[in-house]
Amino acid sequence: MVETPAVAPPGSDAVTRFVDAHFDEAILGADGLAGWLRIPSVSADPAHAADVAASAEWLVSALKRTGFPTIEIWPTAGAPSVYAHWPVHEPNRPAHVPGSAPVPGAPGDRAVRVLVYGHHDVQPADPAEAWHTPAFEPTVRGDELFARGAIDDKGQVIAHLLGLRAHLAATGAPGPAVDLTLLIEGEEESGSPHFADLLRARADTLRPDVVIVSDTSVFARDTPSLCTGMRGLIDAEIAVFGAETDLHSGSFGGGVPNPLTALARLLAGLHDDDGRVTLPGFYDRVVPLSARERELFARLPFDEAHWVGVTARAGAAAGERGFSTLERLWARPTAEVNGMWGGYTGPGAKTIVPASAHAKLSFRLVSDQRPGEVVEALRSWLATRAPAGLRVEVKAPGPGVSPCLTPLDAPELQAASRAMARAFGREVLYTREGGSGPEADLAAILGAPVIFMGFGLPDDRIHAPNERVVLPMLRTGARAIAYLWDELAASAAS
Amino acid sequence: MVETPAVAPPGSDAVTRFVDAHFDEAILGADGLAGWLRIPSVSADPAHAADVAASAEWLVSALKRTGFPTIEIWPTAGAPSVYAHWPVHEPNRPAHVPGSAPVPGAPGDRAVRVLVYGHHDVQPADPAEAWHTPAFEPTVRGDELFARGAIDDKGQVIAHLLGLRAHLAATGAPGPAVDLTLLIEGEEESGSPHFADLLRARADTLRPDVVIVSDTSVFARDTPSLCTGMRGLIDAEIAVFGAETDLHSGSFGGGVPNPLTALARLLAGLHDDDGRVTLPGFYDRVVPLSARERELFARLPFDEAHWVGVTARAGAAAGERGFSTLERLWARPTAEVNGMWGGYTGPGAKTIVPASAHAKLSFRLVSDQRPGEVVEALRSWLATRAPAGLRVEVKAPGPGVSPCLTPLDAPELQAASRAMARAFGREVLYTREGGSGPEADLAAILGAPVIFMGFGLPDDRIHAPNERVVLPMLRTGARAIAYLWDELAASAAS
Repeated sequence: MVETPAVAPPGSDAVTRFVDAHFDEAILGADGLAGWLRIPSVSADPAHAADVAASAEWLVSALKRTGFPTIEIWPTAGAPSVYAHWPVHEPNRPAHVPGSAPVPGAPGDRAVRVLVYGHHDVQPADPAEAWHTPAFEPTVRGDELFARGAIDDKGQVIAHLLGLRAHLAATGAPGPAVDLTLLIEGEEESGSPHFADLLRARADTLRPDVVIVSDTSVFARDTPSLCTGMRGLIDAEIAVFGAETDLHSGSFGGGVPNPLTALARLLAGLHDDDGRVTLPGFYDRVVPLSARERELFARLPFDEAHWVGVTARAGAAAGERGFSTLERLWARPTAEVNGMWGGYTGPGAKTIVPASAHAKLSFRLVSDQRPGEVVEALRSWLATRAPAGLRVEVKAPGPGVSPCLTPLDAPELQAASRAMARAFGREVLYTREGGSGPEADLAAILGAPVIFMGFGLPDDRIHAPNERVVLPMLRTGARAIAYLWDELAASAAS
Repeated sequence: MVETPAVAPPGSDAVTRFVDAHFDEAILGADGLAGWLRIPSVSADPAHAADVAASAEWLVSALKRTGFPTIEIWPTAGAPSVYAHWPVHEPNRPAHVPGSAPVPGAPGDRAVRVLVYGHHDVQPADPAEAWHTPAFEPTVRGDELFARGAIDDKGQVIAHLLGLRAHLAATGAPGPAVDLTLLIEGEEESGSPHFADLLRARADTLRPDVVIVSDTSVFARDTPSLCTGMRGLIDAEIAVFGAETDLHSGSFGGGVPNPLTALARLLAGLHDDDGRVTLPGFYDRVVPLSARERELFARLPFDEAHWVGVTARAGAAAGERGFSTLERLWARPTAEVNGMWGGYTGPGAKTIVPASAHAKLSFRLVSDQRPGEVVEALRSWLATRAPAGLRVEVKAPGPGVSPCLTPLDAPELQAASRAMARAFGREVLYTREGGSGPEADLAAILGAPVIFMGFGLPDDRIHAPNERVVLPMLRTGARAIAYLWDELAASAAS
């Protein structure tokens, strides 16, 4: 395409100058991050409900100062989310009418619609005595700022506001180069119990082309990275029932089936000797790792010995044969036994054949596995394996969480990679997230690729005492965000 | 041998006449069983310690009335046992001097030394409201007597006293045809915590050639049987340790070993697909079932469907391939998982890789397996199977209980079989006991064969409310005991 891009050319110098000039004020000024961090917006504690509401109001004010033309508090059955929208500015067209849907040929039709996800609630701060300075009294030491929420996630939201201001300053335009929506949740730290419903109710308003989640970390301080996906999750409980009561193992042992032995044999059969899950069809939908992604994973400076001994405090790495630890954690599905119980578990011995045996299982899934299909595969597999005289029950109450994955060659991901490279001045690598979160709902419900572009560090102590943000990371992050709107617009226009 | 037997010839008519004439008095008379049953000698309850002592004193009086020349209360660190001795009467020799050891050629040297084991303590009676008539107010309804201890074991001890009196009446001799010792324990229902020590301390006094345990049942009312052995027992606890703490299964799942999965695989490997225990050498010392014993087991009127559905209330019989249910229960060793636990076992789900996993195991053993060797085999087997990164620990605090078995062709067992056949007027079959008890200590510590000759029925509700004795069983039992002293003496003299 030969059209002139709809946005000004990359203005790294102007962006950098703006961020440098305004960073301290954005963090420590009267209306800066530090003031927001003083609000203990702990969503898990009902006693802090007013603080969560005050946190939303603080954010509304900050969004107004940034210049968003549309700002709304979206109530939920729990804590409120904050919504803000700034339509794309297209220099050669009349201004977009806020709130109206773009139609082909009308203003905004070619704009990239971006949804930025973050959250304004925080984890509880206890134990309070473990903090060197109080959790809700932000304190700078060196280039670090200590407070609950400093990086998870208020600091990253502030980086977005500063980055957007830098983008506007650099382009000199009255609006961003992309159609920009922020949706900042209020109960992420409580498991986002109402977020999926909110997304479904507001899907027509949101309609993003790409979702940017800024609630994660880079791989290491000098290794900028983008996270391309999260594993999904489905859990199930298995019960094996034998006789109506525990039986005396002298009178009955050896003559009736033992539910614990049977459950052990079932669980043992869930993996083969290569550590692969044996459920039929389990891997059918798994998107294989490409040679390129494996090569890029391998370039990450991952210290496995440190990870085993210090991070996990475990005895050894282990897992599916043929895959590295990072591949196992990020790109391979699992079947884990999370808990198991049955029979006598008190002090001493009790010679019984137990009446029942129970296990809690969970499966981490990778794209494009579907939670419901995995549960059905488990049910079918167990149905053919129940030993005579025993009854096997499976409960899987939840819908599970779908995995999400943005392919390495997705144009939005490449744009994000270029923006990160410009900000960090280094090659950008790729990671994934082994965990599962409501962020995957964004991809599933909104039908848009999700890119996890975060500026935390692995040792920021999120969810722990002495959470901190490394301020230069936020500064670089704000620049990366400013560049991202350029890059996305340029990518769409090219 | 052509010597005249040292005892009078079998006097079945005289025995029967004596028992018939004295049975009601022995059960319901002023000094009868009913009076003993009124003493709540519950050894498990310290509040009943005086009752256990009173029960011992009651028995001493009854033994005096029976005519035992030597009666002693043997104290232990717990409840007392009652000891009584009546030396053999040999018509052609001078009377034996009580307490002196027989020497070759001296009086009593050829006598069969018999030790009768029973117990005078009883199970607790609760729940009291479940009894149709009070547990310690013996009540006759039809041909049944209801009371705690009616069959377990006071009724069987009374049958011995009546049987001995009938034997003496029938032979007309001033002493029994065997050298007879009774040892009636006072804390069998509390697990016999001091009985093995007592046996060791008194082994020189006891020195039996054969032990008769009368604390069990016949197979069915019209199927008299003798029990030839009990299974032994050893228990162990296995723990598998992984990381120092539970790990988040999103961050670590698939990359570290899961202790619960590992333990399930270990336990699954403890049996092969034929239900055989896989520990190396586990079966090496097992005395194989003879074709004759299998044939005799098969003739027992065992209703497997009733046993599965009503007795066990289980779904099906199961066990080691190639053996019948009775063979599995009585003559084959087992490995049972009695309990298992690890990870999260509360409501809902918790996505962790657990730090540890635990299981309680017990092994039922058959002659000539040795508890200590089985534990060592378990330790060795586990030592070669601990997955990388996991630590496996085995605890087996107890010495276990040895199995015991009297071969079908043992002369003492054949004598008991003839005595039972004379009393019941039917063929006598053989059983074993799947459980393990201190009775096995009798065989191991005293080095004598043990014959379980009991007169209970499987539905006597021992240890449960409304325990009863079927009075005709006690009457027949008393006759069998009278014949037994004849048969044992004749067998020794032949």
